[in-house]
Amino acid sequence: MDTAALWQRYQDWLYYHPELELYVDISRMGFDDAFVQRLAPKFEKAFEDIKAIEAGAIANPDEGRMVGHYWLRNPDLAPNEELKTDITSTLDKIKKFVKSVHSGEITAPGGGKFTDILSVGIGGSALGPQFVAEALAENDAPLNISFIDNTDPAGIDRTLDKLKDRLNTTLVLVISKSGGTPETRNGMVEVKNFYKKHKIDFSSHAIAITGINSKLENVAKSEHWLNTFPMYDWIGGRTSELSAVGLVAACLQGINIDAMLAGAKIMDDATRVPELKQNPAALLALSWYYSGNGKGEKDMVILPYKDSLLLFSRYLQQLVMESIGKEEDLNGNKVYQGIAVYGNKGSTDQHAYVQQLREGVPNFFATFIEVLGDRQGESITIENGATAGDFLSGFLLGTREALYSNGRDSITVTIQDVNARTVGAMIALYERAVTIYASLININAYHQPGVEAGKKAAASVLELQKKVVDAVTTSESALTLDNLASKIGESEQIETIYKIVRHLDANGRSIKLEGNPAKPADLKISRI
Amino acid sequence: MDTAALWQRYQDWLYYHPELELYVDISRMGFDDAFVQRLAPKFEKAFEDIKAIEAGAIANPDEGRMVGHYWLRNPDLAPNEELKTDITSTLDKIKKFVKSVHSGEITAPGGGKFTDILSVGIGGSALGPQFVAEALAENDAPLNISFIDNTDPAGIDRTLDKLKDRLNTTLVLVISKSGGTPETRNGMVEVKNFYKKHKIDFSSHAIAITGINSKLENVAKSEHWLNTFPMYDWIGGRTSELSAVGLVAACLQGINIDAMLAGAKIMDDATRVPELKQNPAALLALSWYYSGNGKGEKDMVILPYKDSLLLFSRYLQQLVMESIGKEEDLNGNKVYQGIAVYGNKGSTDQHAYVQQLREGVPNFFATFIEVLGDRQGESITIENGATAGDFLSGFLLGTREALYSNGRDSITVTIQDVNARTVGAMIALYERAVTIYASLININAYHQPGVEAGKKAAASVLELQKKVVDAVTTSESALTLDNLASKIGESEQIETIYKIVRHLDANGRSIKLEGNPAKPADLKISRI
Repeated sequence: MDTAALWQRYQDWLYYHPELELYVDISRMGFDDAFVQRLAPKFEKAFEDIKAIEAGAIANPDEGRMVGHYWLRNPDLAPNEELKTDITSTLDKIKKFVKSVHSGEITAPGGGKFTDILSVGIGGSALGPQFVAEALAENDAPLNISFIDNTDPAGIDRTLDKLKDRLNTTLVLVISKSGGTPETRNGMVEVKNFYKKHKIDFSSHAIAITGINSKLENVAKSEHWLNTFPMYDWIGGRTSELSAVGLVAACLQGINIDAMLAGAKIMDDATRVPELKQNPAALLALSWYYSGNGKGEKDMVILPYKDSLLLFSRYLQQLVMESIGKEEDLNGNKVYQGIAVYGNKGSTDQHAYVQQLREGVPNFFATFIEVLGDRQGESITIENGATAGDFLSGFLLGTREALYSNGRDSITVTIQDVNARTVGAMIALYERAVTIYASLININAYHQPGVEAGKKAAASVLELQKKVVDAVTTSESALTLDNLASKIGESEQIETIYKIVRHLDANGRSIKLEGNPAKPADLKISRI
Repeated sequence: MDTAALWQRYQDWLYYHPELELYVDISRMGFDDAFVQRLAPKFEKAFEDIKAIEAGAIANPDEGRMVGHYWLRNPDLAPNEELKTDITSTLDKIKKFVKSVHSGEITAPGGGKFTDILSVGIGGSALGPQFVAEALAENDAPLNISFIDNTDPAGIDRTLDKLKDRLNTTLVLVISKSGGTPETRNGMVEVKNFYKKHKIDFSSHAIAITGINSKLENVAKSEHWLNTFPMYDWIGGRTSELSAVGLVAACLQGINIDAMLAGAKIMDDATRVPELKQNPAALLALSWYYSGNGKGEKDMVILPYKDSLLLFSRYLQQLVMESIGKEEDLNGNKVYQGIAVYGNKGSTDQHAYVQQLREGVPNFFATFIEVLGDRQGESITIENGATAGDFLSGFLLGTREALYSNGRDSITVTIQDVNARTVGAMIALYERAVTIYASLININAYHQPGVEAGKKAAASVLELQKKVVDAVTTSESALTLDNLASKIGESEQIETIYKIVRHLDANGRSIKLEGNPAKPADLKISRI
């Protein structure tokens, strides 16, 4: 395509939202008009689906759930008064609570003003809060946030050790819809134990963000925790950042949550427009469909040219991959859908993997996130009138061009600044793009059946471990793996048994292994 | 495959290194014996290539360079005495310098003992130091490290603001082989300016890690910087972690660099063995080749089940993608090679994208990194005799099984603990796997021609910006984009010109834009 035609294509497809000052440019995706026409009926249906979802349809049929994250930003849309009141009263409760924390009205016994947040949660209860903290928290935030987002003992120790001198002024947020997520429960137990070891009362520092009548809510009530905030059945983990899950931590860090919600609301309005070219989320979904042939044949590489957006790709990884990565479509056909998402930030990544993007296997499309504002205040000139920010901008443009000229497609999303409003808008933009794309490919974006398989397999490993420990610790003599497996009637599980005893041995826990580690079958297993 | 056969396959292919206590398990990659036989001649060649590289062959023909990162761990292998002395004397110099910093013998005028490191570098000069700091630095490290790894003004401001009260006890490492990498140069200029603004002498805090007689070395000499350490021509950025690039920062943070080097040396010895089953790097390369059909058809998903290894995937992203992602093979054929790499950590990622890995598009293979030791000290029991670490281990095993049972391949690398020796060994393991894989697919793993394209395109954007600013600021009347582009004779560049003026306008820099942002062609451009 010659320059004039390309410039025309750029202008023809340029989306601009005047209030958000946000641009979406899909001119560097290689689709043609015939493709757009072919997809038109699918978009018709997607726009209908949006209406139904927002009106409270059971968009997640497997779990019989409504999908209501859009109502959080516009409670007037909620399908009944009760839900509407739930949303507004929770928001009020968050703001009131945070005000009391910031003013020092609420403190823990013997502690001063709260200085820190320790957020215990995983998946949707961690990725949004982490992204938003990195994007928006100021260096002088009223409270600083740390995360326990795994059940790694060494990781938990490292985080707790850093907080050990400020435990008395640390708010512990425990975030789990059911209270049954093992990683989060384990984190909570470890943190409780750490408080106990330091002879500091845990309950007066603890806040639960959880479902009504969940296991965790019951614990919080019976132990008289400092506060609880609700997680609703109709909010999925990966779309929960603008619910209490994200808002409590954000507000505590001094982030303007009203602005986040406002940005998301404006974007929700924009992405409700039932016309492709007037709908930025539809433009993204169109591009994704084009690039991967509606089957995820290409990876989505996210390149925000701004340090504070470093975690956006990790946030999108969950939002997109957990929503779209499905074995079956809504009709039960095996479709093996998905779009792999990765990326960090530009121009840093240019010195990591842009070599491959430009020259190597063409199995991706890029999404550039451009932020027009360089910094607060003036910039010094580095060279020939150019500032550090001009270089950053030049690298973005140069890389986009270098990819394009080698036949690699890209989208560019442009915002003015990284602030609470634009971050809220970006979250909403991608939430809706996922909703639309899911509709285009006819899948349920709101369940995650594959996650259960791993959980069940893990639970059975732990059951097996119990049997193994019982058998070895009651055995007078050393056993081989074969002996052990048949003794507990689990010969089918011999490899897992081997892994279990290897792990127990490495941690000096009730079992020891002797023999040549290179020859598992010859190892002798005995109690310590 | 039935359980017994699978257990036999596990044992047959299990690699164990007794001294490193490291396992590599490729039993869950679906290759068969015929495949292994078919690849045998390629491995013969790869093992020959290793010998030649280590003996000082020009392994990077484009740039006429030797590839010597293996010599760093075993200077006796260096092809001549001069190189050998260079390596050992640099190591001595690092240790001596760090000792003086730790003891307080070296301080900046008016400052106390150094407390912080500010590392300014990008790509290979950042990813290794970041990975190693996250993996190995203790909470009570003698110096804490921060990074400027981009030319983002807001990001630079955030980092500098955090250090503003400790500037006088901060060592600034500027890391760039040529001194010409714009991001690093810009970071240096910004940091210098910040020191000046705070009336603190920069030179007495600054250390250059750079090539002999580079632009940066000349600056450091003429400004009397505190110290300089050499970067060698025969070390590429992505394999420089065990050169001064990584070792200076690691040693300053109290990390045992001798142990890192020793771990790498042991691994280098192990991966030199010219026999597939006895060579862990060859086993990885075999698996990569199998999975992606020697063409990178599948992504490499890296899942370390340990928080401290979070940045390993980002480190490997560069090492693998920049090395392997090439348009041409060594014979000049267009091959569009590469392997996309992504991942964060388990079990956290199970709540993000394992849904897609298990059920969705089967376009990847997983690599589990298993760490047997849970933590320093004892663990509490959470449930049914299981500790937090047992859960982590259970999740790894469960996820591996859940993937396998759905036809998704995986590799498992197991180490005892994350420590200096194992981290050194892991770096060396993957460096060699890349070397071998590059040989299997016949590409030059040591250049990065595609990075240059983006750099050149960026430089031309900055040149264009200068022309734009000159034209607008000397124009009496407002211009349209068309006017402006033809005025400077760059009509072909009209879209880039538009992007440039939009960025300048957003930052209030000499140019203003008026009109409807949704209609670029109608905008009026004038001087402020």
